[in-house]
Amino acid sequence: MRAAVFGSGAWGTTFAAVLADAGCEVSLWGRDEGVAEEVNGTGQNSRFLPGISLPDSVRATVDAASALDGAQLVAVALPSQYVRSIVSPFAGALAPDAVVVSLMKGIERGSHQRMSQVLGEAWLVDTARIAVVSGPNLAKEIARKQPTATVVASEFEATAEVVARATASGYFRPYTNTDVMGVELSGAYKNIIAVAVGIADGMGFGHNTTATVMTRGLAEITRLGLALDAKPDTFSGLAGMGDLIATCASPLSRNHTLGAHIGRGSSLVDAIATTGGTAEGVTTSQSIQELARAHGVDVPICDAVVAMLHAGEPKEAVLGALLARPRKAEGE
Amino acid sequence: MRAAVFGSGAWGTTFAAVLADAGCEVSLWGRDEGVAEEVNGTGQNSRFLPGISLPDSVRATVDAASALDGAQLVAVALPSQYVRSIVSPFAGALAPDAVVVSLMKGIERGSHQRMSQVLGEAWLVDTARIAVVSGPNLAKEIARKQPTATVVASEFEATAEVVARATASGYFRPYTNTDVMGVELSGAYKNIIAVAVGIADGMGFGHNTTATVMTRGLAEITRLGLALDAKPDTFSGLAGMGDLIATCASPLSRNHTLGAHIGRGSSLVDAIATTGGTAEGVTTSQSIQELARAHGVDVPICDAVVAMLHAGEPKEAVLGALLARPRKAEGE
Repeated sequence: MRAAVFGSGAWGTTFAAVLADAGCEVSLWGRDEGVAEEVNGTGQNSRFLPGISLPDSVRATVDAASALDGAQLVAVALPSQYVRSIVSPFAGALAPDAVVVSLMKGIERGSHQRMSQVLGEAWLVDTARIAVVSGPNLAKEIARKQPTATVVASEFEATAEVVARATASGYFRPYTNTDVMGVELSGAYKNIIAVAVGIADGMGFGHNTTATVMTRGLAEITRLGLALDAKPDTFSGLAGMGDLIATCASPLSRNHTLGAHIGRGSSLVDAIATTGGTAEGVTTSQSIQELARAHGVDVPICDAVVAMLHAGEPKEAVLGALLARPRKAEGE
Repeated sequence: MRAAVFGSGAWGTTFAAVLADAGCEVSLWGRDEGVAEEVNGTGQNSRFLPGISLPDSVRATVDAASALDGAQLVAVALPSQYVRSIVSPFAGALAPDAVVVSLMKGIERGSHQRMSQVLGEAWLVDTARIAVVSGPNLAKEIARKQPTATVVASEFEATAEVVARATASGYFRPYTNTDVMGVELSGAYKNIIAVAVGIADGMGFGHNTTATVMTRGLAEITRLGLALDAKPDTFSGLAGMGDLIATCASPLSRNHTLGAHIGRGSSLVDAIATTGGTAEGVTTSQSIQELARAHGVDVPICDAVVAMLHAGEPKEAVLGALLARPRKAEGE
């Protein structure tokens, strides 16, 4: 199968290698000519995946129309707040029967749209041809061919199966799911919880505290998800709990790293500069807060992250208030 | 309130300090005269809690009857497979209105009883006067007064509230629950999952794999719990997911440490010797496997741990087979 990946960062490049290892011919598109030349010349993307050799069947290009030409599967891994403007110009170049795969984890500000919805609008693709891939999927571990399970979700089961077949290999194991809403909400929201866990880590709290933040965090994600008609099993599965744990556990996670800088006293601007790349939780916290308010759902951890990052409230006061929430019986 | 704690290991000693910091006068009972002398002489238990100064209102004794005399709350933290034989001789010394609190996480072999059931039988105490305390509660973090939330469960809500009031302080926050079965099953079972995660860590697998084992582990705990009439919310709460994450994340966990030694190639005997103390998951894996078989519930991770630890099967084969379980759609 011919496939294209939009976005030559760590996750896009890794997913190109996953597709290639499963037998696809892959065009990797990005705007950076230096990355494209290095991938094609040496089989490396040393800025985002240092030390990894890419399969020969991954070819990079800066020409989006040529990447899309004949591609039956098109995966997109771009920063969530810019994806619409980046991909829209190439709607006409997409093959009419192509399956579109979102690898992104975010909620668009203002529209409150999930990434699969943004792609569907930008490229005029029916939801039946759209899938999302999400799970405990740290890119740098997959790039080293560590065994990884993931969830491929599509409202149309057959589309999820196409993507599962195009990606499955000895080290990459996709499981299908039809709850696209739940999978995408989990993927976006877990970045906010990872920022909160990072803040707690940075402030010197231990595993008892961070495990509590993660547990209440998943409860908060589930509460909003159920209000949006997602399925409860998604949140206890690999794309919910699994992704949350992997992200919060990893020192490789940008959201966790950014939170830790904030917890140790950095300003948001300094933390963003030190972290590098895009920590999606920063903007997603605002999108999710807007979405939760629109649906009347209580999201205290998300509120705390927004208050610390965007309203400049002192982390001690916010985190203290959060941990001390007056609740007597569990679940109340 | 006068309270007694049976067991002067890390968790028993820490819980004695929790009670004391909440205003109780505490007798800490253990068989080791050296520990008792050190606690009473210097306020330290340097073998189990190095560097921690205990409150003055914790007094240690090797005389169980005097510890029980007048104690309205009696907490027990002893190795799960020996608790029945250790405590039984002192049934007559227990005050008739005392509340009994299990701090233990295990299932008795043969009887398949939970620790609260063992205590109830050994001391002839009605379930209405028994509570269990469980949650993301690494003892060494609580001993350092790190903020920690926990679950106090009793079938009789008022008993849970007595224990919550006797333990609540600025750093220790109890939430009540009436699902004793679910809380105890989670606490015991999570040690098996921690061994499995340790094995995966020791074999060199990354966070994607360990997050998957933890996610499927909680699903496995929940499946058995529902078959035993526990409540689903318990497993997604602090005593379920919270305790599982804290235990698996911590390098302080004996179960995780033991698993890591096995994963790096040690025999069980060597791993037990190197780990020190009691890694409850070793024996609990057999008890839970027996319990699951008696109820016809599929527990693949528990089976894998038993196969590796007790049947001498090679870890590569067992873990490989486990990760490769043929399932197509998530949740099937």
